[in-house]
Amino acid sequence: MSAVTAPSDEASPVLVEIVRGDTVESFHRGAVAVADAAGGIARSLGDVHRLVFARSALKPIQALPLIETGAADGFGLGAAELALACASHRGEPFHVAAVAAVLARIGLGEADLECGAHPPRHEPSYRALLRAGDAPSQLHNNCSGKHAGFLAAAVWRREPTRFYIEPDHPVQQRVARTIGEMTGLDLARAPRGRDGCGIPVIAVPLGALAAAMARLADPARLGEHRRAAARRLLDAMAAAPLMVDGTGGMTSAVLTAAPASVRLKPGAEGVFCAALPALGLGVALKIDDGGGRAAELAMATVLDRLGCFAPEQRAALAPFLMPPLHTVAGREAGRLRPAPALRSF
Amino acid sequence: MSAVTAPSDEASPVLVEIVRGDTVESFHRGAVAVADAAGGIARSLGDVHRLVFARSALKPIQALPLIETGAADGFGLGAAELALACASHRGEPFHVAAVAAVLARIGLGEADLECGAHPPRHEPSYRALLRAGDAPSQLHNNCSGKHAGFLAAAVWRREPTRFYIEPDHPVQQRVARTIGEMTGLDLARAPRGRDGCGIPVIAVPLGALAAAMARLADPARLGEHRRAAARRLLDAMAAAPLMVDGTGGMTSAVLTAAPASVRLKPGAEGVFCAALPALGLGVALKIDDGGGRAAELAMATVLDRLGCFAPEQRAALAPFLMPPLHTVAGREAGRLRPAPALRSF
Repeated sequence: MSAVTAPSDEASPVLVEIVRGDTVESFHRGAVAVADAAGGIARSLGDVHRLVFARSALKPIQALPLIETGAADGFGLGAAELALACASHRGEPFHVAAVAAVLARIGLGEADLECGAHPPRHEPSYRALLRAGDAPSQLHNNCSGKHAGFLAAAVWRREPTRFYIEPDHPVQQRVARTIGEMTGLDLARAPRGRDGCGIPVIAVPLGALAAAMARLADPARLGEHRRAAARRLLDAMAAAPLMVDGTGGMTSAVLTAAPASVRLKPGAEGVFCAALPALGLGVALKIDDGGGRAAELAMATVLDRLGCFAPEQRAALAPFLMPPLHTVAGREAGRLRPAPALRSF
Repeated sequence: MSAVTAPSDEASPVLVEIVRGDTVESFHRGAVAVADAAGGIARSLGDVHRLVFARSALKPIQALPLIETGAADGFGLGAAELALACASHRGEPFHVAAVAAVLARIGLGEADLECGAHPPRHEPSYRALLRAGDAPSQLHNNCSGKHAGFLAAAVWRREPTRFYIEPDHPVQQRVARTIGEMTGLDLARAPRGRDGCGIPVIAVPLGALAAAMARLADPARLGEHRRAAARRLLDAMAAAPLMVDGTGGMTSAVLTAAPASVRLKPGAEGVFCAALPALGLGVALKIDDGGGRAAELAMATVLDRLGCFAPEQRAALAPFLMPPLHTVAGREAGRLRPAPALRSF
């Protein structure tokens, strides 16, 4: 897989069903690719050549330059800060404090972020914030840890910090180069856009995205420098699972239950990626309609089918492998379930 | 169309595309039916025989017994209260006050509701509530107006009010009978489930749902009593558009811009219905994956294609006909657009 190819016209397979009573009320189509570090597709469902914006699922790759520039060591960033650079966090107080601390350490502050402000995704934290008379800041943006990492690299390299989200800024140039190297693609003519947090997004084939994840999981073929950076990021995600996501989140739950076998990261619009060090494989999936609920269940199911979970880990992850559907008042009304194609993946 | 039929296996057409930069990032499939009051399908896309839970899109039909039992007149309910009975409101202070007033008038209170509590969907109202140190109540549930109407009918008929959400309660028996009459279907063996607000949902074919909406819009064939009730509900929705939805909402915007030609009501899981009095037609659509953003744009586009909007109305509704996609910081990043099949509907 060495060039950007057009997606096929065929409908994607149904991956996830939403069942109310005994009736399938809604369903989500999508595609899944499992690849090895050589770029070979080990298993797949749907079109692995389709182009996807990986969005936040790419954060562990976008964080490689933070280590490779020397900024992480220069500023003494530990596992928690590196995990935050790979995170879509929920804006809990410990996330906000850690991002603020990174910014203080590099001599900057909240106002230097260019990601924009949105309410904490962790609802109790949002409620506490409002009850205290405060308003959401850029620190609460789920991408603030990644952005603090971008700024750390810029400061360390004595680059201007303003406009660090623009495509021609050295920070984004390094990120784009890293994505090209990790996917093995010439991305010069790949479609581009702007992510929700303002940075560039580059469309890559789903299979190449899975291969990039496999190269994180099995970095033997990478240069020594990158190999060390990849290992350090994956170690950080396992060491600080709550930093990568947050309380009650599926990503944190999987990282906590199965830290040896799985690293995973969702993105907006139904993208989800995983690096599986024990198997030397990478996973990338995209729900056609962008549905996050389906991406989460599809990833949990794929990991389960790949044998990533021991019985006690499966039990701990039951709420994510067999998610129920409740009424507002808390009665069970149905469930989400993997569709047949995914159940036999 | 007289019996519940199984949906086909073919993939639904793509109705809505999510475009980031110049690339289609995600897309939503679904089906649309436009019917007349005789049950004939005037226009369609996708499978009109598929079974759907209409969810809250059915509220104007679920509210017919409120008038037909005599409860609405008995308790002196006006346009605002009838519009609320058809509403998925946003929990703004004026919604909450009006529902509380209906409950007080029938001698009941918030604790008699069985819909459960959730935060107001109108974000500024939620923020104000928390800043005041209050918590969401059942009055903030988007269905509280419908539930107050259910209770009004029960009180008027001297039925027990407790368990009014259960399938065997007279309130729900009347609602089920009304749905059967308006769809023209024998629903004895139709699949059932429980809605988010706790009441029963009954699966009906999409085309029959559109026909039921057409019978609201063009009630000439209905009995005198029902005809008057249908007219009164549609008049109430046009007279109190903010009660049906809320500030900033697409439903309120359309009811405000085009009160003569359109009544419309969305439901959960990507269902959207409309009654078009000027054309004597009904519309029902379902997004396969349940995506509300797609249901909204699909309905706006269908109404536009059916000629429901004069030029100045189209201009007022531009934010809903051509919705932009923004970054968190407010820069334009793309747009939602109707797919070709819908653009030429």
